[in-house]
Amino acid sequence: MKILVQKYGGTSLGSLEKIKAVGEKIRKKNEEGYKILVVLSAMGSATNDLISLAQGITEKPSPREMDMLLATGEQTSISLLTMALIDRGCRAISYTGYQLGIETTALHQNAKIKKIDQEKILAAFEDYEVIVVAGFQGINEQQDYTTLGRGGSDTSAVALACILQARCEIYTDVEGIFTGDPGKLPKARKIENIGYQEMMEMSSLGAGVIHPRAVELAGKYKIPLYVASTFSDQPGTMIEDKEEKMEEAVITGITSSLEDVQITIHQLDPTTDHLYNLFSRLGEENINVDMISQTVVKGDLMNVSFTLPKADRERGRKLIEQWEGVNPHTKMDIMDINEDIAKISVVGLGMRSHSGVAAKVFQTMAENRIPIKMVTTSEISISWVVDSRYEKEVIRRIGEAFSLEEDNGKMDR
Amino acid sequence: MKILVQKYGGTSLGSLEKIKAVGEKIRKKNEEGYKILVVLSAMGSATNDLISLAQGITEKPSPREMDMLLATGEQTSISLLTMALIDRGCRAISYTGYQLGIETTALHQNAKIKKIDQEKILAAFEDYEVIVVAGFQGINEQQDYTTLGRGGSDTSAVALACILQARCEIYTDVEGIFTGDPGKLPKARKIENIGYQEMMEMSSLGAGVIHPRAVELAGKYKIPLYVASTFSDQPGTMIEDKEEKMEEAVITGITSSLEDVQITIHQLDPTTDHLYNLFSRLGEENINVDMISQTVVKGDLMNVSFTLPKADRERGRKLIEQWEGVNPHTKMDIMDINEDIAKISVVGLGMRSHSGVAAKVFQTMAENRIPIKMVTTSEISISWVVDSRYEKEVIRRIGEAFSLEEDNGKMDR
Repeated sequence: MKILVQKYGGTSLGSLEKIKAVGEKIRKKNEEGYKILVVLSAMGSATNDLISLAQGITEKPSPREMDMLLATGEQTSISLLTMALIDRGCRAISYTGYQLGIETTALHQNAKIKKIDQEKILAAFEDYEVIVVAGFQGINEQQDYTTLGRGGSDTSAVALACILQARCEIYTDVEGIFTGDPGKLPKARKIENIGYQEMMEMSSLGAGVIHPRAVELAGKYKIPLYVASTFSDQPGTMIEDKEEKMEEAVITGITSSLEDVQITIHQLDPTTDHLYNLFSRLGEENINVDMISQTVVKGDLMNVSFTLPKADRERGRKLIEQWEGVNPHTKMDIMDINEDIAKISVVGLGMRSHSGVAAKVFQTMAENRIPIKMVTTSEISISWVVDSRYEKEVIRRIGEAFSLEEDNGKMDR
Repeated sequence: MKILVQKYGGTSLGSLEKIKAVGEKIRKKNEEGYKILVVLSAMGSATNDLISLAQGITEKPSPREMDMLLATGEQTSISLLTMALIDRGCRAISYTGYQLGIETTALHQNAKIKKIDQEKILAAFEDYEVIVVAGFQGINEQQDYTTLGRGGSDTSAVALACILQARCEIYTDVEGIFTGDPGKLPKARKIENIGYQEMMEMSSLGAGVIHPRAVELAGKYKIPLYVASTFSDQPGTMIEDKEEKMEEAVITGITSSLEDVQITIHQLDPTTDHLYNLFSRLGEENINVDMISQTVVKGDLMNVSFTLPKADRERGRKLIEQWEGVNPHTKMDIMDINEDIAKISVVGLGMRSHSGVAAKVFQTMAENRIPIKMVTTSEISISWVVDSRYEKEVIRRIGEAFSLEEDNGKMDR
């Protein structure tokens, strides 16, 4: 049995016409001899519409009931696509996460997949050519509906591909992974091949095409992951184990994000464990601190800067105000919150064998007189914060410096 | 444990404001010391909107996938109401039909409830004050989602009340059951008390407030059924075992329906089993033939007239054209289909002990020169067909003749 997993995102399911077109695409692939497990997101803006409904009822909806509500989004899209497939003569059947026994951890709205019933899927493939599964959702030990959090449908698709040892194709509204966001780096190149670790960094750092959890899972089980456009026949990007080559480009891509705020706390006493307490508490509250940097300012005091998602700004601020590290008399003075920042990152396996990437970044920034507010590095990436008004200029300058654009000659000849 | 079952229909859940008001109503009842099992329909026009979506995909949606789609309607309303209840400090939890193990027969879109897991409900009442259950839906032996057909939420509510031996309150947008449709019989009286059998006939014959299957089930298990308005404190109508009293009004109510067509087949040979074949075939196709009357016309031939729902008109016509009882040379001549009919019915337990109801109907019709096109009778009802333009006049005249209106003196004094 040749099995393929395909995942279609919300923009690919934004109208009944698009759902029918997706049905046609799947039918053709089925005719090529593949049994297909299809994983769907909710249609277009359905998930956001459901969240708005809940917010019309209460500011703080019960997480269990929120998952009950959100689960209807994918249930709608799987039933409609399956109707379209059956209408095209395809033997198809839909399953919710609940029906398929996609067991998750208990945590509502951010559950993790624990186990999937492989038997049920293989048994269904005896009778059906296409199985359409609701992504993003599962069932916990209490037999409650759970959801995997934003981007969870990618994770559902990869987890199902792992169970079936199948290739996983993620269809979306862009043609693949690019060296930079084509809206900001107009001549960004499509990447044909990228390694799991590079892709994970790219995703985590703001390349929104595929969820980093999904890439991590695919990497762990060595599942080939292919990202391409739903409604185009252009080849997409293959994510798979990648050998490091000598000729490798130093940098694979550049990403940027305007979704964070930078918080700076001044004049901390480095001899206490206050800082440890603060970050544990932020972690307990599920506030995702991203970049952290720390400098000594004068004498025995230090400054610490970190970024967290804009959405968590207020929760973060309250937590810091209640925190014992804050001088009760000067609370307001010792904390700066800067909203107007852009986080820029360059990613590339090639960094491992090429030194001087950081130097080239600093040089490019200095030459263009763009002040850097904060820097962090990982083995295969460098991220830095600039004032948000410089975002596009930085992308363009770094794109030029690291040759991330299409070869002009090729394009114009 | 004092348990009460309450059902709220789609019009009571037509907006977020209404859902919050329903939440408030339930919270108050809970404070009076009742544990409440709430059964919900889908919000407002949600079910029709989902059907339209499916029809945008294909003219003939797969029934299994249709149930998968429709089940999202109630799942949405239960999660939102439960959020509103929790927000009001009420310990509440929602369950889909699937979760609660509401086992049904296999037939999609018109399943019947077979079994409900009483244990799970009682266990949930240990921890929660209010359990909010999706009406209209269940799960069959294949672990597929099923729906009970139109009006199925009433049946879900009554079935759950039977399991719990609890009183069942049906909340809707009218104040109870009236002697006639107040839109057509403006001075119709609200009925305080009505027996199960009378109510079943009223419901079947077009009084749309409550589904006849639900009334039948309540009668079988002697569950008191109370119908009232969601957003009014006026007393409603109690449906329960009713002793026949000597002073009983002869007629309890009048109903009318414009939802049927009358089909007449001419010149049939009564010595064959063709007619039996025709009605079995209509039955197999789930076309619900309602009134049937048959007359001899000349010599050894007969005419037969029957009514069926307008929605089934085309399916019915095709079936009759293919049927061997039809003379192949004169197909078109021997069948009349009349769409412009109204079916009028009067219902009352009192008919059993009072003769002359039919005579009074015929007399009223004759005095007003309204031709009767067909008549059928049951033990406690008489139904007849007239040209649809006479509908309102018939209701008014019969309402007067059988004193179905408010006592004018009382109203005006």
